[in-house]
Amino acid sequence: MTSFRFERLGQDGAARTGVIHTLRGEIRTPAFMPVGTAATVKAMMPDSVRATGADILLGNTYHLMLRPGAERIARLGGLHTFMDWPRPILTDSGGFQVMSLASLRKISEEGVKFQSHIDGHAEFLSPERAMEIQRLLGSDIQMVFDECPALPATHETIEKSMALSMRWAKRSKDAFGEQPGRACFGIVQGGTFADLRVRSAEALKEIGFDGYAVGGLAVGEPQSAMFETLEATVPHLPQDRPRYLMGVGKPSDIIGAVARGIDMFDCVLPTRSGRNGQAFTSEGALNLKNARFAEDPGPLDPKCGCPACTRFSRAYLHHVVKAGEIIASMLLTWHNLTFYQDLMAELRLAISESRLAEFEARQAVRNNPV
Amino acid sequence: MTSFRFERLGQDGAARTGVIHTLRGEIRTPAFMPVGTAATVKAMMPDSVRATGADILLGNTYHLMLRPGAERIARLGGLHTFMDWPRPILTDSGGFQVMSLASLRKISEEGVKFQSHIDGHAEFLSPERAMEIQRLLGSDIQMVFDECPALPATHETIEKSMALSMRWAKRSKDAFGEQPGRACFGIVQGGTFADLRVRSAEALKEIGFDGYAVGGLAVGEPQSAMFETLEATVPHLPQDRPRYLMGVGKPSDIIGAVARGIDMFDCVLPTRSGRNGQAFTSEGALNLKNARFAEDPGPLDPKCGCPACTRFSRAYLHHVVKAGEIIASMLLTWHNLTFYQDLMAELRLAISESRLAEFEARQAVRNNPV
Repeated sequence: MTSFRFERLGQDGAARTGVIHTLRGEIRTPAFMPVGTAATVKAMMPDSVRATGADILLGNTYHLMLRPGAERIARLGGLHTFMDWPRPILTDSGGFQVMSLASLRKISEEGVKFQSHIDGHAEFLSPERAMEIQRLLGSDIQMVFDECPALPATHETIEKSMALSMRWAKRSKDAFGEQPGRACFGIVQGGTFADLRVRSAEALKEIGFDGYAVGGLAVGEPQSAMFETLEATVPHLPQDRPRYLMGVGKPSDIIGAVARGIDMFDCVLPTRSGRNGQAFTSEGALNLKNARFAEDPGPLDPKCGCPACTRFSRAYLHHVVKAGEIIASMLLTWHNLTFYQDLMAELRLAISESRLAEFEARQAVRNNPV
Repeated sequence: MTSFRFERLGQDGAARTGVIHTLRGEIRTPAFMPVGTAATVKAMMPDSVRATGADILLGNTYHLMLRPGAERIARLGGLHTFMDWPRPILTDSGGFQVMSLASLRKISEEGVKFQSHIDGHAEFLSPERAMEIQRLLGSDIQMVFDECPALPATHETIEKSMALSMRWAKRSKDAFGEQPGRACFGIVQGGTFADLRVRSAEALKEIGFDGYAVGGLAVGEPQSAMFETLEATVPHLPQDRPRYLMGVGKPSDIIGAVARGIDMFDCVLPTRSGRNGQAFTSEGALNLKNARFAEDPGPLDPKCGCPACTRFSRAYLHHVVKAGEIIASMLLTWHNLTFYQDLMAELRLAISESRLAEFEARQAVRNNPV
């Protein structure tokens, strides 16, 4: 049996490329994880997600616990079987979504009481329950339950929140227990305060995890603040464990974070943008609603090999976006996920060939936010 | 160059099986044509539509003339290229949709003035313009422009409308002109009045068409009235030309119409039902919203080979339908189109083996309307 193991294959400055070995397959790093919130990467068939180059998906504990329910998914054979994705799945712990989606939250040392955003049902999440849910789902990489405070906040507020998250991290690790072949990741908190990030990283290392995430970023702060926080945090994380920047991001965020030593990413941007008619391309971000595409016979991105680019014109994509056709979401999601996976493949190659700085400089012009 | 040609391969009572040869490929009959209204079979990639067994799609003149416009599609290389469907396409003439969707219609001998249901823009359709649009789209089978009166209506009303449609049929045929490899079909009108249907069929034969459609049915009349009308009409149509029952229908409608000599069908039922969480199965129609499927680990239809049935459980389909996920529309549309194409394949085989009556009796139990 292959246990969870991170194999580093190349290094370029702070950036690394490698492979995470899991029971359900290899994850090439730096890796981008498409978000499969409710047991589906929206508008995509699972084999199409795989065809874009994805090695691992992210599932959301919060959404799945509310609908269809973790115990139900377990009775149906686990999340991999349920959603027809036999490869690795990472699940978040629900901490972030409880803060951003649920109403009537009440946080205590024990956990968080809240109401479902779907039907108002009373629910409870604690470190123990969050880990139980992830175990029921059959998640390959399980995240500790943490508190995600809104930014900006004072040093005192963030310090208190971080300290609570560290106590919850210990309880999460204890609740995770021993699950052969599965991994448990800690989450560094501390806002944009370097001293708190360092203390958080040290506290997590003391507990000991299979991987280390950086949480509480990409919540509206400028990119420079995010990069500075990474520069303050990453050197305090173990070299031999994967590092995951949660909820990030735009292509330029990912490139900058990879250059600062991050190995894993997840973000709804490629999928959500696709459903809104927006495409990431080698020529920059494009809004397909724009009338200038109405008679453009050319491909969405001449450098892309996805079905949207090889089989349809920009004019067709414009038409189906304007007409609100489902195929618009299907094609633009497929394209954007391909763009992201191609970017990760280019990053892995650039690192292995020690030319990441050059790659980063070249990309700075093209990867603007949508 | 292969010209348009109908080859009959088998007969069983009034039912026929055969192949329509066209420049863009063969159409096995009896044939079901998925509806690709706005240059997309909703929620399906074109290669997936083909994978269900479809030989030909239907496109809607009315929708395409309004958005993105026939001239625009022509400049972009025609409808086949635009929507990535290299196989045969049949287009309706817009007559039916003008009646059912447009507002402020004004019918004259010349044609129909109306307002677009999208933006209120003033538009005009006549036999000449409807045929010009279909030629611009590059349609392989073009339908004459007809008037589709609402039922029930008096004999006098239907007679007047049918007579107008016959004058329009002549103008349509003249406007179609000579288009090597492409076909022009006439449309029999006359409501449920047998005498009018016979007169309409005779008038169309006098003009001479490559195929003959039966229009003005499936507009709310009982199935028995539809079947009686077919029995009155079909014997007056040429044996050596394909016969097309427009806008039909439920599986039992199709089986009964095939038994009465119809070769081609189109209907939004499998695609629209799929988007509404309804599935046609060998065990009857199912509504996946139903709570009894919430923990059903079995396949949607054990006799079906489509991805929805082979890769997911009823419980998963229930979940994604309830959650309003796009993959629910994708999977149930794929399944329903597969069900329809499997039905057509079974009908073709039953006719070729002279056991259609037996097949019809066996199916009567299972193919209930959703």
